Amino acid sequence: MDEATFLKTYDKRKFDTPLISVDSTLFTYHDHQLKVLLVKRSNHPDLDLWGLPGGFIDMQQDKSIRDTVLRKLEEKTKVIPPYVEQLQCVGDANRDKRGWSVTVCFSALIAHQDCEVGIADVSDAAWVAVDTLKDQTLAFDHQAIITVALERLRQKALYSIVPAYALPEQFTLPELQQLHEVLIGKTIQKKSFRRRIEQAELLEDTGEKRYEGGRPAALYKMKEASGEYTFVRNLEG
Amino acid sequence: MDEATFLKTYDKRKFDTPLISVDSTLFTYHDHQLKVLLVKRSNHPDLDLWGLPGGFIDMQQDKSIRDTVLRKLEEKTKVIPPYVEQLQCVGDANRDKRGWSVTVCFSALIAHQDCEVGIADVSDAAWVAVDTLKDQTLAFDHQAIITVALERLRQKALYSIVPAYALPEQFTLPELQQLHEVLIGKTIQKKSFRRRIEQAELLEDTGEKRYEGGRPAALYKMKEASGEYTFVRNLEG
Repeated sequence: MDEATFLKTYDKRKFDTPLISVDSTLFTYHDHQLKVLLVKRSNHPDLDLWGLPGGFIDMQQDKSIRDTVLRKLEEKTKVIPPYVEQLQCVGDANRDKRGWSVTVCFSALIAHQDCEVGIADVSDAAWVAVDTLKDQTLAFDHQAIITVALERLRQKALYSIVPAYALPEQFTLPELQQLHEVLIGKTIQKKSFRRRIEQAELLEDTGEKRYEGGRPAALYKMKEASGEYTFVRNLEG
Repeated sequence: MDEATFLKTYDKRKFDTPLISVDSTLFTYHDHQLKVLLVKRSNHPDLDLWGLPGGFIDMQQDKSIRDTVLRKLEEKTKVIPPYVEQLQCVGDANRDKRGWSVTVCFSALIAHQDCEVGIADVSDAAWVAVDTLKDQTLAFDHQAIITVALERLRQKALYSIVPAYALPEQFTLPELQQLHEVLIGKTIQKKSFRRRIEQAELLEDTGEKRYEGGRPAALYKMKEASGEYTFVRNLEG
């Protein structure tokens, strides 16, 4: 049989396959807290439990897994986050009561102000402080997925300024430092943090200032491609 | 409807889903070259092209995606590699002629001597030097997957001694350094490399020696958990 004939007669439904979905851990930084977007499940299984925004691939609408992820996030937040990265894939016989299931997990960041309007419209979506999650029962294995996403974001906070995507487009250096400190769980030396970021030329001074506690703080924004920059030595040191 | 009734009547075959497979990039270091295991495809599509070892999830045999990966690697090499890590998931409408397809890619390392016997038995499997791959047409998007796996391994070579899993259990420091140099594409200072690894206490001196060019070189092996160690500053510097 040649390939054309093979493809014409190929019936994938002859083979039993796992369920396949996507799930996103969308983080933001607000009120000095790292928060994650949760949605309340409106279908079985795990009906009424809170979990990550996600769902099944729509092979007509979606050209790639990333399309599925963005479509599902936009349904909940009305916007496309500026940072979306694949995290990991989890697949086994037990994570979903419906049977063998694979989910491709993504991690995303957005400024709180850029999607609070979108979320206020959706009664089943909420920003939840990461610190308050531990004792909550979430749908499926979403608690474990958030733990992995958080650990990855911590690593990013040590070696890059990727966390800046969870801030508004314009931010002050103290804001960025606070976010890094929340993620790393340690205080960073102000001078050293400022110098490291200046030396790497990652930020652009917008020329504008914000007054915090009476003192003016310069407002910066990320330069293009700054999210891809990796520090040779971590920011903690 | 309650959850039990929902699950009893749930028929996943009502929903059209993508194909889902796994693919592994298994590396080794041999004859001063980094090599990758390729297998010749015995089925349509892309029949007779070389590609990565992998295949579909068997929901009866495999309890998790990792089980599928190990089963497929063992089929080809007769052994389970000491290092197997999830790399990324690729899924889109065009990567497979059979239609929308998702593949979960893993990266693995093994000592050449630990699986050459296994591979010699399999006429459709071969170690191919990474440097010679560029001009070859591989099955599906496997060329692109290998590129990503290689870049990830390069990053590991900068910040860890994970590449040591591609060496025999006992190896000399010059051997490990050469492998790191091949991966990074740069010469590393011998003194600095040795000091960094000693300071991190990653290796155990076996007390045995090998004679290379007439001079004795101490044989080391990895300590447990050494693969998880990350250097704060990369090994290049």
